[in-house]
Amino acid sequence: MWQLYQFPLCPFSRKVRLLLGEKGVAYDLIRESPWQMRDEFLDLNPAGTTPVMVDEDTNATLIDSQAICEYFEETVERFPLISGTAAGRAEIRRLVAFFDQSFYGDIVAPLLHERMKKRLVERAPPDARILREAMKRANTHMDYMDYLLDHRSWMAGGTMSLADIAAAAHVSVADYLGGIDWSSHEPVKRWYAGFKSRPSFRPLLSERMEVIAPPAHYEKPDF
Amino acid sequence: MWQLYQFPLCPFSRKVRLLLGEKGVAYDLIRESPWQMRDEFLDLNPAGTTPVMVDEDTNATLIDSQAICEYFEETVERFPLISGTAAGRAEIRRLVAFFDQSFYGDIVAPLLHERMKKRLVERAPPDARILREAMKRANTHMDYMDYLLDHRSWMAGGTMSLADIAAAAHVSVADYLGGIDWSSHEPVKRWYAGFKSRPSFRPLLSERMEVIAPPAHYEKPDF
Repeated sequence: MWQLYQFPLCPFSRKVRLLLGEKGVAYDLIRESPWQMRDEFLDLNPAGTTPVMVDEDTNATLIDSQAICEYFEETVERFPLISGTAAGRAEIRRLVAFFDQSFYGDIVAPLLHERMKKRLVERAPPDARILREAMKRANTHMDYMDYLLDHRSWMAGGTMSLADIAAAAHVSVADYLGGIDWSSHEPVKRWYAGFKSRPSFRPLLSERMEVIAPPAHYEKPDF
Repeated sequence: MWQLYQFPLCPFSRKVRLLLGEKGVAYDLIRESPWQMRDEFLDLNPAGTTPVMVDEDTNATLIDSQAICEYFEETVERFPLISGTAAGRAEIRRLVAFFDQSFYGDIVAPLLHERMKKRLVERAPPDARILREAMKRANTHMDYMDYLLDHRSWMAGGTMSLADIAAAAHVSVADYLGGIDWSSHEPVKRWYAGFKSRPSFRPLLSERMEVIAPPAHYEKPDF
């Protein structure tokens, strides 16, 4: 059985969990707080990041959310998530990188720092200016996602792909932390409402990070 | 013919160029300074990052260094760079992500900001404290690379892979900017000396970024 080292608000672990859920791969969760820089965890992954997956039986270790997703895409045929032509696969990977880097760096990382790390580690209040800036950027990113969904059924084309999973993972963490204003983003809202109802997503939405409560609409498929 | 939008010190463009060189894919260089946020470039890539590749004949557009590398790995058989078992490929991708994220974020990004962007854009002097911190981190990363090369012929295993290419791309930019202390890193030094002699690497090493000169040893295979 695979073990997945993660914490509830890690967007990269959510991305992996959504893929594993769609592919029907079983795993146990192991709680890891990477900001504590536990020696045993750094021995496992010198980069000190979640998610990490370890196969209890073979001791195989997988590190980095994209390397993990590519691994299960290559080894589990069910529900291909990086499929199509080489150009189509490049478009899926472009958008995954876009969400993992731009959406994460502009929105999710500052929200996590201000609303989670400051509370858990520094016991300091969030910086309202940084939160406002992150929410403004979220609005710009959601405009771009609206544009994509005005032209395509799913983020990267005609079928659901890892791009949708990466987007949903990051949006869900930003939404948990109160960073998303859902008014005037109908296409993304419709896409996300559908995603919220997926069996792969339900367990994630019901989990809570200690001391931080999500907004009332967070878990509702109809919001 | 492919066109590659880049600037001489972009490590992600170097990674793509090294892969294209090893695979024998021809391309034209187009100079792009992403920090200028040119409208036409943002239309091409909303993330605003280099490298971007455009096929003049078909108008196909590839964005994000890893998506580009995976595309050419899938479409050009010559010199496989993400090869082996699924676990071996996961190890290659883990290390590519390690260099693209940790090595870049800890070392290359601050060096580029202090020594290039501040000079070109802000016309301000570099912050000596930030440079010292980046060089200290470079030392730690080189220790880890020494450790890998003490146990393996190449970064990710027995054969040269995209992990070596990503590492060489980031190390070369850090070295250009004077961020690498080569004393007491024999394994990495030996590996990098071999890399410098490769025909795919020579053209990159001979290019210069305006107003910024590299150290005297930068281009020499024997340093």
